[in-house]
Amino acid sequence: MGAPALLMGRDRKTSVIRLEPGAQFHTHRGTIAHDDLIGLRWGTRVSTHLGHPLMLLRPSTDDIVRNLERSTQIIYPKDAGYILMKLSIAPGCRVVEAGTGSGGLTLVLANAVRPTGRVTSYDIRSDRQELARSNLEEVGLADWVTFKNCDIADGIEECELNAMFLDLPNPWDYLFQAHSALAGGGFFGSILPTANQVINLVAALETADFGLVEVEELMLRPYQTASARSRPKDRLKPHTGYLVFARRLIPSGE
Amino acid sequence: MGAPALLMGRDRKTSVIRLEPGAQFHTHRGTIAHDDLIGLRWGTRVSTHLGHPLMLLRPSTDDIVRNLERSTQIIYPKDAGYILMKLSIAPGCRVVEAGTGSGGLTLVLANAVRPTGRVTSYDIRSDRQELARSNLEEVGLADWVTFKNCDIADGIEECELNAMFLDLPNPWDYLFQAHSALAGGGFFGSILPTANQVINLVAALETADFGLVEVEELMLRPYQTASARSRPKDRLKPHTGYLVFARRLIPSGE
Amino acid sequence: MGAPALLMGRDRKTSVIRLEPGAQFHTHRGTIAHDDLIGLRWGTRVSTHLGHPLMLLRPSTDDIVRNLERSTQIIYPKDAGYILMKLSIAPGCRVVEAGTGSGGLTLVLANAVRPTGRVTSYDIRSDRQELARSNLEEVGLADWVTFKNCDIADGIEECELNAMFLDLPNPWDYLFQAHSALAGGGFFGSILPTANQVINLVAALETADFGLVEVEELMLRPYQTASARSRPKDRLKPHTGYLVFARRLIPSGE
Amino acid sequence: MGAPALLMGRDRKTSVIRLEPGAQFHTHRGTIAHDDLIGLRWGTRVSTHLGHPLMLLRPSTDDIVRNLERSTQIIYPKDAGYILMKLSIAPGCRVVEAGTGSGGLTLVLANAVRPTGRVTSYDIRSDRQELARSNLEEVGLADWVTFKNCDIADGIEECELNAMFLDLPNPWDYLFQAHSALAGGGFFGSILPTANQVINLVAALETADFGLVEVEELMLRPYQTASARSRPKDRLKPHTGYLVFARRLIPSGE
Repeated sequence: MGAPALLMGRDRKTSVIRLEPGAQFHTHRGTIAHDDLIGLRWGTRVSTHLGHPLMLLRPSTDDIVRNLERSTQIIYPKDAGYILMKLSIAPGCRVVEAGTGSGGLTLVLANAVRPTGRVTSYDIRSDRQELARSNLEEVGLADWVTFKNCDIADGIEECELNAMFLDLPNPWDYLFQAHSALAGGGFFGSILPTANQVINLVAALETADFGLVEVEELMLRPYQTASARSRPKDRLKPHTGYLVFARRLIPSGE
Repeated sequence: MGAPALLMGRDRKTSVIRLEPGAQFHTHRGTIAHDDLIGLRWGTRVSTHLGHPLMLLRPSTDDIVRNLERSTQIIYPKDAGYILMKLSIAPGCRVVEAGTGSGGLTLVLANAVRPTGRVTSYDIRSDRQELARSNLEEVGLADWVTFKNCDIADGIEECELNAMFLDLPNPWDYLFQAHSALAGGGFFGSILPTANQVINLVAALETADFGLVEVEELMLRPYQTASARSRPKDRLKPHTGYLVFARRLIPSGE
Repeated sequence: MGAPALLMGRDRKTSVIRLEPGAQFHTHRGTIAHDDLIGLRWGTRVSTHLGHPLMLLRPSTDDIVRNLERSTQIIYPKDAGYILMKLSIAPGCRVVEAGTGSGGLTLVLANAVRPTGRVTSYDIRSDRQELARSNLEEVGLADWVTFKNCDIADGIEECELNAMFLDLPNPWDYLFQAHSALAGGGFFGSILPTANQVINLVAALETADFGLVEVEELMLRPYQTASARSRPKDRLKPHTGYLVFARRLIPSGE
Repeated sequence: MGAPALLMGRDRKTSVIRLEPGAQFHTHRGTIAHDDLIGLRWGTRVSTHLGHPLMLLRPSTDDIVRNLERSTQIIYPKDAGYILMKLSIAPGCRVVEAGTGSGGLTLVLANAVRPTGRVTSYDIRSDRQELARSNLEEVGLADWVTFKNCDIADGIEECELNAMFLDLPNPWDYLFQAHSALAGGGFFGSILPTANQVINLVAALETADFGLVEVEELMLRPYQTASARSRPKDRLKPHTGYLVFARRLIPSGE
């Protein structure tokens, strides 16, 4: 499969595509052959057959994640980047996530733990996991991920983990498994869309021997980029989820 | 120098310290000898000599950055994590930043590009840079950073860079240097506290052969963690800076 | 013309209509005759001819303003209510606004200064002003408003005003007129969509003998109302404008 | 008691005082006699005995509310102004609020319903209510308020009300009383600091024959006013409360 590329027109509309010999990129302002793009330097200006200018760019991690083929709500880069900071994800880390979803966070984690770390991603839905695996393969990051089509209710096979992230509707039901799999002081994180879920998870963490519980939300505000009219954009996606972080404590007597 | 450790009391107040033999940790609720902490597993509960409980934890990247010894405003982890996503920072990347400041972003970049990448950090203030170097050494990340006590107005020695980040009051004055040093399509970023600066930088980027300019702001909202009283905390730091991102284009004819 | 009424269906979609004998209200789930609504108590449940339930309610000021027939961007109730607080608008106040726009703020001001106060509203566009006048008449508030189809650049005829509000793209060009028309210590306000305009206005106020300049922004965040899924709504209108407030000072020697 | 006045120094620090013959205003930059202020025009510049300049201004509704002598958390003007819009408060309205608290919202409501409307304010704490009464008298608005030192659990004596506002920790316990006192379609509002309370109230409203439930939050963001450095202020009060609005429906068969 071809490398991902980003094309941006004059209207600032961007498209992330795969460069494949023989393929065509279609816009309402004309088409361009992938063969005319393959081999060009990133940053080159090109044109459709109708003369409409396009910029050819390597997509950023942000571009790739936001353009993933998806079957579920993804974890947006604003949250994923902060999760890296709060869970101390770095090269060499061993991390478990559940569920896999469309692989947006999986991709960010895999990119951050390589070349010596490992991400294990659990999901009970094999169809979703196949999509995520395909997404990871497209960007060359599947080598750092083990996909497990299992229910973490049945236990997490990994142990002494640096970090664990639960992107599930009911993470409070899996705190025993998470506690068992994490190393002492290990980093726990979760993302939840509703306040009801936050209330449940925080109450459960308080009784499940986790400490330093934090609940935070990141609001991303995009601005217009016309320098003569600097103002927030009219619409934003204001809520992706509440982020909950905690630390695995050592039970007395362990 | 000792490893960084985080101690948290019942009042949720946290302290990041260096574990050094013979040293004492003092709180208003008693003291504890570092010797009683060294060698303990992360996540262990300990007590001061007055019986006040403390949790011993490995500090997260977020904890470390927010507790850096500093001579300047730092780039907060909420912004640093997002910068990684927008600039596609990953193992192997070659990145230049200016100025170094207290090394908060330097630390996050170094952690993300290792083991095969490299961060070069320019600052005209040698005292600041020495502090940043010391901060990086403390966490074992100095090996991936080259500090240059030079003015980027005199040129950037690196070239074909993956990404460049300017944390300077007047980044618009260095766009020629940034353009020359970046690879085609390379990622440009900057953080600016005022709208006036954003207006200046966006206008300058428009004429300096950069494309896909984006201006964004991340607002971090912390919540109370008592599950029976789930609400935003009373005070937050609402504005750290506007983030400006752009891509280096290839001039026609290059 | 009939009284304004609000109809809400089960999908929470609301419509503000005028109750007029013989008219029909059409929805994609059936119709209902206005004659079946006229004379009912507010709060009554009714049904379309297809049995779809509707609630008949008196529209709030918020509903009315957001549903005004409009030729321009309106000042939203979140901002209008705060303007009342910052400009100390109360029964008996004499207020000038320019421009009239679609009359959203005019309506809120007229409602707040009656029965003994007066709003004078300037606009150079007679078509807009006619629409605003019609909007005010529909809700029975036109008696407290004098519309002037004049340019305030040519002077403001009123004097010793309690408050003045400029909803114009270039309010800095009219500070001399505003200063002359306001009483000592009088309240000045303006709403501006861009940071560039805020920068211009604040700089002009500093040199035009106004004091206590304040710049504020109100962000309105709506939440889902399903009690089992309490969360921010997915989309909001994040930016209506920056609010600028100031006080008219007495020049030395006056 | 004297009229309220606002004094602002060069450092933009403001003080709301009562002008009383013989009194002195003390700042750390000198004093000024109230006798030197009484009778001056609003907007006049004065000086302390050390030559420090002060501006003499009439306080706005916002200034007065934020400077109320208080025994409880007040409802801030950003919220109070929006409540006026959502509850359609206007001259002539009959409104009940419970509890009185320090009288911040009472003041705003009284100012908005006069000269022909009436606010009735219930509180079980007589000491709080006396403070609120004193606050209302100071600004000349007590004539439009009836204070009742009663528990609304025992019933609300008023009926056919235009609007009712509950500023109580458990408003869900009083929905029967609120429903009985409101006119058909009457406006209901409440402010609650926690998401837990919002969840409880929304669930209760759903079963208590209220409709058109809305939950909203207003975030106020103040900006620096130096025109050369336009940026959000470093600190804001980010959360005062969630606002809940609803409409009283007519039960079938009433």
